[in-house]
Amino acid sequence: MAAQRTLQAGLIGYGFMGRAHSNAWRQAPRFFDLPVAIRRRVICGRNSRAVSKAAGALGWEKSATDWRRIVGDPEIDLVDITTPNDSHAEIAIAAAAAGKAILCEKPLARGVAEAERMTEAVRRARVVNMVCHNYRRVPALMLAREMIEGGELGDRIYHYRARYAQDWIADPDFPLVWRLRSGTAGSGSLGDIGSHIVDLGRFLVGEFREVCALGETFVRHRPVPGKHGRRARVTVDDAVAMIGRFRNGALATLEATRFALGRKNGLTIEINGSGGSLVFDLEAMNRLQLYRADDAEGRRGFRDILVTEKVHPYIEQWWPPGHLIGYEHSFVHTIVDFVRAVAAGKRVAPDFADGLATQRVLAAIEESMRTKQWARV
Amino acid sequence: MAAQRTLQAGLIGYGFMGRAHSNAWRQAPRFFDLPVAIRRRVICGRNSRAVSKAAGALGWEKSATDWRRIVGDPEIDLVDITTPNDSHAEIAIAAAAAGKAILCEKPLARGVAEAERMTEAVRRARVVNMVCHNYRRVPALMLAREMIEGGELGDRIYHYRARYAQDWIADPDFPLVWRLRSGTAGSGSLGDIGSHIVDLGRFLVGEFREVCALGETFVRHRPVPGKHGRRARVTVDDAVAMIGRFRNGALATLEATRFALGRKNGLTIEINGSGGSLVFDLEAMNRLQLYRADDAEGRRGFRDILVTEKVHPYIEQWWPPGHLIGYEHSFVHTIVDFVRAVAAGKRVAPDFADGLATQRVLAAIEESMRTKQWARV
Amino acid sequence: MAAQRTLQAGLIGYGFMGRAHSNAWRQAPRFFDLPVAIRRRVICGRNSRAVSKAAGALGWEKSATDWRRIVGDPEIDLVDITTPNDSHAEIAIAAAAAGKAILCEKPLARGVAEAERMTEAVRRARVVNMVCHNYRRVPALMLAREMIEGGELGDRIYHYRARYAQDWIADPDFPLVWRLRSGTAGSGSLGDIGSHIVDLGRFLVGEFREVCALGETFVRHRPVPGKHGRRARVTVDDAVAMIGRFRNGALATLEATRFALGRKNGLTIEINGSGGSLVFDLEAMNRLQLYRADDAEGRRGFRDILVTEKVHPYIEQWWPPGHLIGYEHSFVHTIVDFVRAVAAGKRVAPDFADGLATQRVLAAIEESMRTKQWARV
Amino acid sequence: MAAQRTLQAGLIGYGFMGRAHSNAWRQAPRFFDLPVAIRRRVICGRNSRAVSKAAGALGWEKSATDWRRIVGDPEIDLVDITTPNDSHAEIAIAAAAAGKAILCEKPLARGVAEAERMTEAVRRARVVNMVCHNYRRVPALMLAREMIEGGELGDRIYHYRARYAQDWIADPDFPLVWRLRSGTAGSGSLGDIGSHIVDLGRFLVGEFREVCALGETFVRHRPVPGKHGRRARVTVDDAVAMIGRFRNGALATLEATRFALGRKNGLTIEINGSGGSLVFDLEAMNRLQLYRADDAEGRRGFRDILVTEKVHPYIEQWWPPGHLIGYEHSFVHTIVDFVRAVAAGKRVAPDFADGLATQRVLAAIEESMRTKQWARV
Repeated sequence: MAAQRTLQAGLIGYGFMGRAHSNAWRQAPRFFDLPVAIRRRVICGRNSRAVSKAAGALGWEKSATDWRRIVGDPEIDLVDITTPNDSHAEIAIAAAAAGKAILCEKPLARGVAEAERMTEAVRRARVVNMVCHNYRRVPALMLAREMIEGGELGDRIYHYRARYAQDWIADPDFPLVWRLRSGTAGSGSLGDIGSHIVDLGRFLVGEFREVCALGETFVRHRPVPGKHGRRARVTVDDAVAMIGRFRNGALATLEATRFALGRKNGLTIEINGSGGSLVFDLEAMNRLQLYRADDAEGRRGFRDILVTEKVHPYIEQWWPPGHLIGYEHSFVHTIVDFVRAVAAGKRVAPDFADGLATQRVLAAIEESMRTKQWARV
Repeated sequence: MAAQRTLQAGLIGYGFMGRAHSNAWRQAPRFFDLPVAIRRRVICGRNSRAVSKAAGALGWEKSATDWRRIVGDPEIDLVDITTPNDSHAEIAIAAAAAGKAILCEKPLARGVAEAERMTEAVRRARVVNMVCHNYRRVPALMLAREMIEGGELGDRIYHYRARYAQDWIADPDFPLVWRLRSGTAGSGSLGDIGSHIVDLGRFLVGEFREVCALGETFVRHRPVPGKHGRRARVTVDDAVAMIGRFRNGALATLEATRFALGRKNGLTIEINGSGGSLVFDLEAMNRLQLYRADDAEGRRGFRDILVTEKVHPYIEQWWPPGHLIGYEHSFVHTIVDFVRAVAAGKRVAPDFADGLATQRVLAAIEESMRTKQWARV
Repeated sequence: MAAQRTLQAGLIGYGFMGRAHSNAWRQAPRFFDLPVAIRRRVICGRNSRAVSKAAGALGWEKSATDWRRIVGDPEIDLVDITTPNDSHAEIAIAAAAAGKAILCEKPLARGVAEAERMTEAVRRARVVNMVCHNYRRVPALMLAREMIEGGELGDRIYHYRARYAQDWIADPDFPLVWRLRSGTAGSGSLGDIGSHIVDLGRFLVGEFREVCALGETFVRHRPVPGKHGRRARVTVDDAVAMIGRFRNGALATLEATRFALGRKNGLTIEINGSGGSLVFDLEAMNRLQLYRADDAEGRRGFRDILVTEKVHPYIEQWWPPGHLIGYEHSFVHTIVDFVRAVAAGKRVAPDFADGLATQRVLAAIEESMRTKQWARV
Repeated sequence: MAAQRTLQAGLIGYGFMGRAHSNAWRQAPRFFDLPVAIRRRVICGRNSRAVSKAAGALGWEKSATDWRRIVGDPEIDLVDITTPNDSHAEIAIAAAAAGKAILCEKPLARGVAEAERMTEAVRRARVVNMVCHNYRRVPALMLAREMIEGGELGDRIYHYRARYAQDWIADPDFPLVWRLRSGTAGSGSLGDIGSHIVDLGRFLVGEFREVCALGETFVRHRPVPGKHGRRARVTVDDAVAMIGRFRNGALATLEATRFALGRKNGLTIEINGSGGSLVFDLEAMNRLQLYRADDAEGRRGFRDILVTEKVHPYIEQWWPPGHLIGYEHSFVHTIVDFVRAVAAGKRVAPDFADGLATQRVLAAIEESMRTKQWARV
């Protein structure tokens, strides 16, 4: 066997997402046949000591504190960006200019303008680029896509209803962390979790045409961390309710909230087509419910498909039927497909253009919230 | 024991709803201790032969073809209106003028103006009046109300999300029945099933302040019944998606659709408050799921309450724990409460004023659909 | 139309079961087209005053205190026995001798010998006879039978596992009611609820060949009602666990218990055949889950069938799809089929011979518990 | 910080279990703070080429073909045995003699005699020993244990009912693989999956006192692999149904089957105690349902606990609430606890003595199947 080509990876960021991506970089070649070898060359963060420790803990050869060194390193083939949103554009554009393949955490950017520049940069540089909407690669959702594309839900989609509900800030005494300040976070539930259901709508149903949204901040003042007794204003949305229409005529009913007590990571989707329906719940992510109108009369019902069969997307590489996989596996699948695309020099979805398209929808939602009018995407 | 007072009832209409109400009139005194006896005196319909047969089948002493005779009969104490929507106002106003207690099927009227006249009529006549939003008296939903009123969901409600989804016209070859023509039906899914989730929102959360809605007619032309090969235009909505805000600040996400394949009578509700959440599904109507934030840490989860215990609303009169009741029982409970109110000469909710309030919300939704703007209730 | 024949019915017993049967007698002709009219002629009980009141409340023309009068009344066509088990045999045998059609509550008798005498009596008298195993006529279970008979579960059944779990005596201070004394009740959970899962096993799978069982009385002494501070011995089983084999080779795993906290009327069944599986839960009795091995690969899963479609057994007479029915409806269906059989002079299942067969299985289970050996049926 | 001690590990076997264990050895130090470093020194298998490839793929420094070399290597601290059952005893006894800590896949041995010798060997050698019943370390089941030990289910357990149901050999044309021959596999469903529910019964409820079982081989002849058209006899059980009693009086209802169509890895457990109940399903392994009798009246119901909170066992090291983990994580947790025990020189459960106790229960079940009598454990 000829010597296998090796791709050298650099990871920017070592927080929660850095940890999830690192795991995926380690696991991908263990469970999937990749066309190239992966070398986890360097991890980058601003705190020298912390990132050095992270390199050891997360399995990277070395650490660095300046992402420019990585982007500029000719040995690095691909850059994985997991930093906060406000640095995505700068890093990605530099990486593109340096010819690196790029995987960037979602949301792609803080806004449409940034996303446009990023998309333009990768287009010009002709580098493989991907935005990490990892939920697309939950096997049940990839299966949903296969079903819809294969016509199993009929030739028309009528409804896409999606909710992403959490409850981690429902306590009014939960502190005013950076995610609750518009300066650092952009938006609140919308960008953080709403972006997932917008992306999945585009993945499963098609492009949005118009939206109308209503946001609310239920708890307007929260304790300032480290300042005993002081409260300051929350400047992002706690929840957003949205309706809209896809270009193909399907109706959208969307909701993102951090105030749904009991919902921890409750991304639920129901799609109704002319031939059937699908239901998904991220808190039971190994399952997909399918209703088929062409089942025999009197025998119709939602089928609870345990998406752990060999024929299901990505599953053959894992465990036998009925043996569940979890959250982290969606990142492994994302990186597997990214690496394969890089090795082949081919496009992979969702790419930056997808990230930009999602950003346009989010921007229309924000505009609608601001103007209290319908907004076209 | 002194002789029990008897109330004489007249029922107008003998269709699906006439059948459901008749059953309730028969069953109410069998299972509940009522303060009065009930005499099912007369049932009224336009087709003499059919209504005569219905009288026997449904258990009424006699039949009639002119509702005016019933309204004008001094022996009749109460009138139950189950005719199509376009006759509600005329009958109810006449019945009020004649001093009859009135139970009227929902929606109260074809529009706000009619509903106002009806409400004014019963107010002036000081007759007991009720609109038959029977789902309020599903034990699980009455329990939900008790919980919310008792503060078990906390002192604030954040979200009311309700969907009423069916699929009986999803087939494009389903004929153009009267419910699909605006002339006869007023609206489509909105008035028929959307009215229920609006009423339940008012029942469980409070008054609506503003709404924004999007309607769609997915199948625009349908076969005309009896005219082979001809199709004509559907003039009502197949589905409506709505967002809104309650006066108390809660967000509403609503949806009514007849195009959700696999959903037969899928009225689902989720309410999130500052202290917990509730989930209900009419297709599993004997259950209510309750999440309590004050359960011990690590022991929290949605409790699947089987609402068949003696302490649950209405249940003591039925069967032992775990023995289910069904759809028809919600009508029995409605009539029990109506009869008790009539006997006591007291108000009962939902009354015509409630029906009017719901109608105002529906009108705002229709306005929003027409103008593509937010509408205040 | 020629005058319809009328059957005159007499009901013996006015307790919980008398109430459930009375409702069914009233409702059956309201919702189903019966070939005969029903006259609810007389209800019988030992307490003159109470039964007289019951006649009015439950809808019977008159009351009586001596069942012999009813059995001997030439105007009575059929007798419905809902008294405690220890009087079933005497009444039924007398009724058979008098040529009455007989419906008898389950269990048919206190033991095999009694059941044999009863079965012999109806056989000789050639009267229509039925034992009221009402759960057979829950639409979902009747549908299950249709599926199995139609080969939808394949040509072999491998497993029948059924559990009937309740918790109403789990409190050790629950009093020593008659159901907990062997003298009055015969057995405990076995006869009361275990008999249902044995009957359903025979209905759905076939005849039992052999059984082995283990019983337990978890709370051995309980307060004697009306005797403050005194406790006496519980002389029936609180729970029984059983394994067995059907003649067709299927394995049975059965359990009856009154000590399963949280299970109120938890009759659950799972059947695995060579072509698929079925799952049923009486606490969600409008549903049946079906797994079909011949669904397309990657699309298999338990279908959650809402058994409320027109094509489902008995449903056409009730409400539209998605509108649930409840516990009491199983009695209505039983009486509908009984009346039709009486009118036609035909057999109806389960008849006394079925009741006897079930009794033989229960006797084998009791023998196995006593001898701690396997027992043949 | 002082240099951390390093433990050198040798893994025997590289099949399905070797793969699952290797993953756990790699992941354990990435996600958990271990008191020692782990060096994955050597993996051993009989096929030189295959095991050499496995070493690379699974992350071991080198490979070997003779397990005696590993057991005899003074640098190796611990040996992990994942070979077929028939070699467990020999390897483990040699490893114990060499002073190695030992982790051994379940079932511990082919029978009681072997298990006794193994247990005696580790007792004499005073080496840390553990049997890999990984499901004990599914967080939901570890939580169940905490609840039961903490008295949350009351002071008595009444029922332990467990079923392990699969369907991978339900097709009669599935070939006669080694697992279906008693010579190689010992027993069929009993040892393979029944051993898990016996172990979990001991873990959650206590020691078994007596059992009675019924086994069946539904498909008696199967195609011989590689011999076209030839069929030979299946010599193990396809399914086993069992009843039994624990020493503390609880009843056991157990079932292991490979013929439950639609059940892929369906290990379900329900435990009823005097204060509440627990329900678990391995196909929804991130959940545990808890019923508490001391919840307020009218508010009781099974709580669906998503076992992904920081306070839940092992979860803090993984992802935020609502983010699921999967099958493989149970092995990671097992190895974490094993490594901690080795580092501390302490006992860890389940140890070989536990494995032996489970084996005694399995032997009693086999005896009962053979003699068709009850058997004491």
